Amino acid sequence: MIAARLHHYHEPLRLDELDEPTITDPHDVIVRIGGAGLCRTDLHIQEGQWAEKSGVQLPYTLGHENAGWVHEIGSAVSNVVVGDTVIVHPLVTCGLCRACRAGDDVHCENNRFPGISTDGGFAHFLKTSARSVVKLAPDLHPRDIAALADAGLTAYHAVKKAASILHPGSRAVVIGAGGLGHIGIQVLQALTPAEIIVIDPSEQARALAGEIGADRTVAADGRQVDTVLELTDGRGAEAIIDFVGEGDAVAQGVAMLRDAGSYYVIGYGGRVDVPTIEIISREINFIGNLVGSYNDLAELMTLTAQGKVTLHTSTYPLEAVNDAMADLDQGRLQGRGILVADPV
Amino acid sequence: MIAARLHHYHEPLRLDELDEPTITDPHDVIVRIGGAGLCRTDLHIQEGQWAEKSGVQLPYTLGHENAGWVHEIGSAVSNVVVGDTVIVHPLVTCGLCRACRAGDDVHCENNRFPGISTDGGFAHFLKTSARSVVKLAPDLHPRDIAALADAGLTAYHAVKKAASILHPGSRAVVIGAGGLGHIGIQVLQALTPAEIIVIDPSEQARALAGEIGADRTVAADGRQVDTVLELTDGRGAEAIIDFVGEGDAVAQGVAMLRDAGSYYVIGYGGRVDVPTIEIISREINFIGNLVGSYNDLAELMTLTAQGKVTLHTSTYPLEAVNDAMADLDQGRLQGRGILVADPV
Amino acid sequence: MIAARLHHYHEPLRLDELDEPTITDPHDVIVRIGGAGLCRTDLHIQEGQWAEKSGVQLPYTLGHENAGWVHEIGSAVSNVVVGDTVIVHPLVTCGLCRACRAGDDVHCENNRFPGISTDGGFAHFLKTSARSVVKLAPDLHPRDIAALADAGLTAYHAVKKAASILHPGSRAVVIGAGGLGHIGIQVLQALTPAEIIVIDPSEQARALAGEIGADRTVAADGRQVDTVLELTDGRGAEAIIDFVGEGDAVAQGVAMLRDAGSYYVIGYGGRVDVPTIEIISREINFIGNLVGSYNDLAELMTLTAQGKVTLHTSTYPLEAVNDAMADLDQGRLQGRGILVADPV
Amino acid sequence: MIAARLHHYHEPLRLDELDEPTITDPHDVIVRIGGAGLCRTDLHIQEGQWAEKSGVQLPYTLGHENAGWVHEIGSAVSNVVVGDTVIVHPLVTCGLCRACRAGDDVHCENNRFPGISTDGGFAHFLKTSARSVVKLAPDLHPRDIAALADAGLTAYHAVKKAASILHPGSRAVVIGAGGLGHIGIQVLQALTPAEIIVIDPSEQARALAGEIGADRTVAADGRQVDTVLELTDGRGAEAIIDFVGEGDAVAQGVAMLRDAGSYYVIGYGGRVDVPTIEIISREINFIGNLVGSYNDLAELMTLTAQGKVTLHTSTYPLEAVNDAMADLDQGRLQGRGILVADPV
Repeated sequence: MIAARLHHYHEPLRLDELDEPTITDPHDVIVRIGGAGLCRTDLHIQEGQWAEKSGVQLPYTLGHENAGWVHEIGSAVSNVVVGDTVIVHPLVTCGLCRACRAGDDVHCENNRFPGISTDGGFAHFLKTSARSVVKLAPDLHPRDIAALADAGLTAYHAVKKAASILHPGSRAVVIGAGGLGHIGIQVLQALTPAEIIVIDPSEQARALAGEIGADRTVAADGRQVDTVLELTDGRGAEAIIDFVGEGDAVAQGVAMLRDAGSYYVIGYGGRVDVPTIEIISREINFIGNLVGSYNDLAELMTLTAQGKVTLHTSTYPLEAVNDAMADLDQGRLQGRGILVADPV
Repeated sequence: MIAARLHHYHEPLRLDELDEPTITDPHDVIVRIGGAGLCRTDLHIQEGQWAEKSGVQLPYTLGHENAGWVHEIGSAVSNVVVGDTVIVHPLVTCGLCRACRAGDDVHCENNRFPGISTDGGFAHFLKTSARSVVKLAPDLHPRDIAALADAGLTAYHAVKKAASILHPGSRAVVIGAGGLGHIGIQVLQALTPAEIIVIDPSEQARALAGEIGADRTVAADGRQVDTVLELTDGRGAEAIIDFVGEGDAVAQGVAMLRDAGSYYVIGYGGRVDVPTIEIISREINFIGNLVGSYNDLAELMTLTAQGKVTLHTSTYPLEAVNDAMADLDQGRLQGRGILVADPV
Repeated sequence: MIAARLHHYHEPLRLDELDEPTITDPHDVIVRIGGAGLCRTDLHIQEGQWAEKSGVQLPYTLGHENAGWVHEIGSAVSNVVVGDTVIVHPLVTCGLCRACRAGDDVHCENNRFPGISTDGGFAHFLKTSARSVVKLAPDLHPRDIAALADAGLTAYHAVKKAASILHPGSRAVVIGAGGLGHIGIQVLQALTPAEIIVIDPSEQARALAGEIGADRTVAADGRQVDTVLELTDGRGAEAIIDFVGEGDAVAQGVAMLRDAGSYYVIGYGGRVDVPTIEIISREINFIGNLVGSYNDLAELMTLTAQGKVTLHTSTYPLEAVNDAMADLDQGRLQGRGILVADPV
Repeated sequence: MIAARLHHYHEPLRLDELDEPTITDPHDVIVRIGGAGLCRTDLHIQEGQWAEKSGVQLPYTLGHENAGWVHEIGSAVSNVVVGDTVIVHPLVTCGLCRACRAGDDVHCENNRFPGISTDGGFAHFLKTSARSVVKLAPDLHPRDIAALADAGLTAYHAVKKAASILHPGSRAVVIGAGGLGHIGIQVLQALTPAEIIVIDPSEQARALAGEIGADRTVAADGRQVDTVLELTDGRGAEAIIDFVGEGDAVAQGVAMLRDAGSYYVIGYGGRVDVPTIEIISREINFIGNLVGSYNDLAELMTLTAQGKVTLHTSTYPLEAVNDAMADLDQGRLQGRGILVADPV
């Protein structure tokens, strides 16, 4: 099969011819990839930002946002059969550690993260596990929902945490209405009664935000802190949901946060740098957010099936992966980019 | 009456002769002070750290940790009578805003904070409100429990938040076993089944910590991060409860924090400065903590009455306030310093 | 002024000429009634069901669901001024007990309940307290939202509890789409992503339910348990929200409840009668629900202002109170009945 | 091997000679039983109370409270090795359904319950699954902790739920200080700051309760409701934890429950039968409790290892199972009865 692999940091991916993965553990599931989402994290990996954290050995196959059809299963797999349409939870988890048993798959003590720490889905086939596949209606096409596996799941997870503090009359500020943000807006709309204020520099992104649930959109024009304070009685918003996490975003987001409110960190690249006296005198919180759990993914797929969440995507052939990455890097990519491999 | 007042930042307090406060609102309560706790925040106020945040006009009377006896009450006061022994919740709150009505007194939209933003309790008398006095058993002496009004209440509030994530088998690291920390340890012991690990540079403080509930004590000897990791299977603690909040404490605390864990910021003076990639990849949280609610104070007084929390204090006459502040500043003060005014 | 008063159980109310209430406490607020909702509880009071629980002395004025304009205020009232349009939280609370301070107004240790335990709002004027009035936009007419003060608030309170267990993919069964139920459906729609299944014997009520947010409506035709099980994969619903609470409703509701689910009791008149072996082997919960808190009422008024909750009402002159009660009793009243007194 | 099996309802168990269980699924774990707890549920099974609910076919082996040593493992088992000392979570669960993935093992959609719905541990060997074994320190003897697998786990689970409403100053009433109750008292003591009031007819049980953490003990002498009300300012307790669930216990427990409080149903045999008007006007809750989760069991084993929970047991040879059941039925059994099979 063909796989798009990173051989050296700071270089384009190479399209390698590899053997198909094979079943080696009774829980293995091999998925024929129907769509693989492209993520800003793929750029960060290419730049080496994750080299130390992931400990991965080059070369390896990127792609951590996958959907497809079950191609082969191990002897202990009981929840899917060959041919099922599935979306793939990004982590492979053990099911036996405390975290897995508490519903917190992402902190599995024995996890692997295909596309981050081992071979991922920019390929014809992906090896994952029975615990990582969510069965879907057969009429869904993987390329249309693949981006929910990571971008959507991360946005869902963060918004679900925020929902617990968002009562009628409260406000949520969404910083960044791109790949994750536009899903986050829809999930806020589905799960909470909060007023939704969206900040983005792109007029097009703000227009989309307005269509999918934003009550207010604010240009990132240098006056956005003042604007948000005006929209919130001078007090700021109960929740800041930051899909950017770099540049000025954090400092501005903190300035828009209401006392006793919570700041949800999702985007990354910059720093949270705040005096402790400000944290305690305002009694504000910073909440880290990684990808969601398997049940989160199943819930998000329910919202999608109900039409409450829809994705905006652009499709590329797998072979055009480096073009797609360049488009993402240079802001030319509308919605989420999806790589589609030809059938074998 | 005599009151210890700040006339200029960076200068000692002056002992002024002032008129006693009088009832001007139907909810007013005037308390004859029996004990007023001295707090590191008083030093910070003197240094001007709170000048901008509090907006207070100099001169004014410090002292935000007060207990005494009810001296006079306004016409609408129904919960105490003259002569009652009371501990004084540090804030004067309205009871009508959303925060007050949600049990979150501290974020009252109309609050005053005697000793921070208006005249406090380093004096013979303090004016507060019906909503701020907790009635105590008459045999308690105010000087013995005054420090619970702020130091104790802040520690209680933070530990109560942490309690929700501290299951049997989890660990809480307490950074700093001083005035607040030694109460925090006792509250952890009373409210949670967690293993308690205490870090302090002072051998004496560690010895006290061991007596009042710490399962492990660790010297702040430069190896404390490694030591805590060794004590926690290399993974760190579920909760870091930081009563220091300055110097190396935060960076070290973050290094001791388990993935998916929470860092409770109580001490202040330094910064939380962490890359967003670390916050999201480890999915860690930073939780700000100010003083607790009125109900928190009542609960803490219950623990005290049950013998589960005891205070270690050193008493000074009100007139020796500047000596007491110097002792606190230079680390000579054992336990919490309490100022006691002579009876009128 | 005119007031509709109960002189003897099981007899119609009498229209008495009474003195207007006067300010006797600094927190008193006198409201000129613009609309007073009629509630099934008024029928239950007339039948003597509340005689023992409320301990009220006859005669007294009914009416616990009130809105109007501030007419006069006591000296300690700071949150409203004469002329403000207000909705009246049904209880008068102290603001000082643990329950009030925890945001749980309804369990105030010193509460009075106008219309239940003291004179209510079937009159030109009502005496309440500063803590019980929620200020509204001046263009709202009290008669249009009075029913939210109790019927709406009770439905809101119960649904808000249920919201915490209602994730995407879960189901809520609403039993009874009448005065409370039709508000409950709208609140479910606003606060949760659950699929909403509504059971009612009336075709008209089911049609309304469908218009305001029910995903499915089910006739109470004797087959409703089977129908709900068919709609829920044979497992039942995560939440049963029972606005009936008498007759067969409870037994049927329990049969529709999923294992590990919760049954919200709101309507009353019958019994919960379930073997303990069923409660433990299915691990099901029964959650009592009284009227909501002041903050709940403010949140509900926000949803109303946002157009997410609308009321269906029928208006009667105050003088026609006994006709209105007869219409309610005999099922002729469409929506919630509202009594409107002429201006004095 | 020998197994104690139920051939006919209402008859003694028979000691049958059976083949040892064998590995048939890659996740199977065969445990050599070191101790099997005897439970009141075993009497209820014998009486046919569970016949319909469990759907089990007679004859089968009883025993759902098991600990021992790993004897043989399937090919996919990675968390234990042969020879490990283990306690056995009572259910065999799939790990793949929503409940399992939410940490709620007990409501696994594909569960089996050895000793209830399939062959249990009153035998030399038990077949369970990798997901059901908690590894213990090798120096623990299974007979000393086997009763924690079900009795202890059920008590732990209920108390953990109650802990969330038990603040300092609150009261928990424990009804019944027998096999489950005496563990519940110790868990209350370990997890909560509540005052613990224990009701039991047996003077010996009350004496034990006092030694292990009860603040007050009350004889079940007909005056217990009045006594509890006297101990709780006439208002009742925030939590009633009912390990009896039959006879007068429920009616009395409801009379001891504070308004807005919660009643935890654990014991069974009787009914919860309460008017809906009482449930709503007092806003009280009834919370069903089955056995706890795997993580609950691990937490309970931690408390045991820390010396915070200790068991009181009486040991019988497996062959004396019917004597043990008679002793339990007739109140002659002190502590929890444990059956110990001879080594093969």
